[in-house]
Amino acid sequence: MDVISVIRTKRDRGELTADQIDWVIDAYTRGEVAHEQMSSLAMAIYLNGMNRAEIARWTAAMIASGERMDFSSLSRPTADKHSTGGVGDKITLPLAPLVAACGAAVPQLSGRGLGHTGGTLDKLEAIPGWRAQLSNAEMLDVLRDVGSVICAAGDGLAPADKKLYALRDVTGTVEAIPLIASSIMSKKIAEGTGSLVLDVKVGSGAFMKNIEDARELAATMVELGTDHGVRTAALLTDMATPLGRTAGNALEVRESVEVLAGGGPRDVVELTLALAREMLDAAGLPDADPAKALADGSAMDHWRRMIRAQGGDPDAALPVAREQHVVTAAESGTLTTLDAYAVGLAAWRLGAGRARKEDPVQAGAGVELHAKPGDTVTAGRPLLTLHTDTPEKFGYALEALDGAVRIGPSDAAFTATPVVLERIG
Amino acid sequence: MDVISVIRTKRDRGELTADQIDWVIDAYTRGEVAHEQMSSLAMAIYLNGMNRAEIARWTAAMIASGERMDFSSLSRPTADKHSTGGVGDKITLPLAPLVAACGAAVPQLSGRGLGHTGGTLDKLEAIPGWRAQLSNAEMLDVLRDVGSVICAAGDGLAPADKKLYALRDVTGTVEAIPLIASSIMSKKIAEGTGSLVLDVKVGSGAFMKNIEDARELAATMVELGTDHGVRTAALLTDMATPLGRTAGNALEVRESVEVLAGGGPRDVVELTLALAREMLDAAGLPDADPAKALADGSAMDHWRRMIRAQGGDPDAALPVAREQHVVTAAESGTLTTLDAYAVGLAAWRLGAGRARKEDPVQAGAGVELHAKPGDTVTAGRPLLTLHTDTPEKFGYALEALDGAVRIGPSDAAFTATPVVLERIG
Repeated sequence: MDVISVIRTKRDRGELTADQIDWVIDAYTRGEVAHEQMSSLAMAIYLNGMNRAEIARWTAAMIASGERMDFSSLSRPTADKHSTGGVGDKITLPLAPLVAACGAAVPQLSGRGLGHTGGTLDKLEAIPGWRAQLSNAEMLDVLRDVGSVICAAGDGLAPADKKLYALRDVTGTVEAIPLIASSIMSKKIAEGTGSLVLDVKVGSGAFMKNIEDARELAATMVELGTDHGVRTAALLTDMATPLGRTAGNALEVRESVEVLAGGGPRDVVELTLALAREMLDAAGLPDADPAKALADGSAMDHWRRMIRAQGGDPDAALPVAREQHVVTAAESGTLTTLDAYAVGLAAWRLGAGRARKEDPVQAGAGVELHAKPGDTVTAGRPLLTLHTDTPEKFGYALEALDGAVRIGPSDAAFTATPVVLERIG
Repeated sequence: MDVISVIRTKRDRGELTADQIDWVIDAYTRGEVAHEQMSSLAMAIYLNGMNRAEIARWTAAMIASGERMDFSSLSRPTADKHSTGGVGDKITLPLAPLVAACGAAVPQLSGRGLGHTGGTLDKLEAIPGWRAQLSNAEMLDVLRDVGSVICAAGDGLAPADKKLYALRDVTGTVEAIPLIASSIMSKKIAEGTGSLVLDVKVGSGAFMKNIEDARELAATMVELGTDHGVRTAALLTDMATPLGRTAGNALEVRESVEVLAGGGPRDVVELTLALAREMLDAAGLPDADPAKALADGSAMDHWRRMIRAQGGDPDAALPVAREQHVVTAAESGTLTTLDAYAVGLAAWRLGAGRARKEDPVQAGAGVELHAKPGDTVTAGRPLLTLHTDTPEKFGYALEALDGAVRIGPSDAAFTATPVVLERIG
């Protein structure tokens, strides 16, 4: 087997054999296939695609590159959620303790943000003391004691994907459905969850800009999960505008705590409950009532225990950015558009995200939205507040917002896009 | 400027701007753009192409990455030849001294073989004492004293191409017309020749398998040369069957010397003379008579002086492989096919070529052809002789030849393919 013949097969629009896939993933993990060889193969896959059989084998080979976790010793069924990434997407924070409060175990292995989408671990690290890195034994302990854990994936889980993901990020080969689907599912299947709900984002702030691509990605992932014995379903959800009223690390923790306290923005509550119901159904707990668990404080109780179990202080004051800049509405009327990508890019430029893996993020940086599409706005009144420790970036962030806000006449008909667009599974 | 946006432009079928091309070639040469980034860009170019404006700029940027040589101090016009590579293609060896004998100066910067096509420098290194590496000053001295020089290109010439060529070789991105054309022409233009004749091979033993691709490659290169003030023409020549009766290093030197002595295989003589006439025309010497220079010994005289000037002994015995294996004709009749690629691959497997740049080659290894298409063959009589120092490779070489030979009835009509198929320029 040699790597050039594998690259040529895909370059010339052929189908990779099972042996070619097994070999190239293993050889890349071991360093026998070089980065520059895998990146030309990744571009060939990006442009020429992979069929379902190839994607299934590619995923299986990435799972086989590392260890698999096993939660069969837990007394409760496991349920996990994965979001393809959006702006203001803090849903994992209220969702994991909520589902735990309803009786499932939630082993949530999460990532850091890169580019304009925030990362769950970056958000939680805004809480003083909180630790993302747990050993497998610590993770199991938290899961057993609290019922949910949110932590970084260990190095042993799908190392081929870890290496390939970092490579794709610097070689312009991120947004390909076969590569996205196999990356997400190899990690989730290796993690050993019994059931999985996928939140596939659609719109300007998501990787998938249109619903056809999102459907294909969702269907591919549901099939991969099902084939590996994981009960898997997917919701396609709107990412044309940010979720909730904040994008940024500490800002989103604050909003998540509001949701756990029974308040919070309507769209965040709605999506949290929709995903919780899917997870509980998939985990074989269809009678659980997540709305009740939000209302009666049991979800909040689980949140506090989960944060404490990972060294965090749920009562500590959250970091606040040193400087604020208020953007006011240019005219009065109905806010018709607030573009998710633009807000994500602005938050990233303000310091909420990172350009390179090794960069730090600012806990307090981000964007606060004072209105959402459909709301009435008044000329000269605050529309957005930008937060940062590096005020020299205000101009750069404002550039990102250029054209992101549209205001129509007060009497314009406005039809709100539902949060959940479709269900696949 | 950032590399991801350059990669995305080409990935998404856009046209690279002049600024993007200048920047990415310069940044790659300096090491700011990593190998894995250039290789995903190369695969995107492979699959999505470049238009003429992009190819012209890409070539200019590679020329600008290094030094340019200048032969204006010579009293004679300069003419060079480049072959896109074939099996048994020893033409440079008799051609350079022949054209020098007719009054032009031939600064032939050559390469080593990789894969199934042999390299001119590997062939000449079969001559005891001969040196491929010359300083620019030594090169000019040989050119001034003898009129022709065949040597390795210095590191200062188009370093971007040098780096990119090595990368393409290991990433499955060799056979793309924009990349081949810009690679060849950047070196030849930087070399500073006044005129250039391209020998573009077509057929199983060549990179270009069909005449349409060969025409496009030839036209692209002729345009690039002309735009840079180099008088450029191209011949499309047949590479369905090997050139001459040998493929291998010392074997081909011996055959070249036969041609210089006024003998040698008909096709080698024909192509040598056709290319010599093109070079002499382009150099402004249309009245020179290369056939006479072969017949009267002046070409041989220039060959001997050229070999001696680079440390070689033209009278030394050439290396002979330790073992031979004779392949006989399976039946009697007319040889209709002798596949160039299969013979090249067999020679390579016998040790005449290398798998990696740093591998040594065997001087004596290769394949000798006792018949060519159109010849009558007799069952049980020798058809090919395989030569090698590593007889354990005979089986592997014979596998390459499986199906390469076809013999038809003695009375079958056979139309020989002409050596020169077309002229472009």
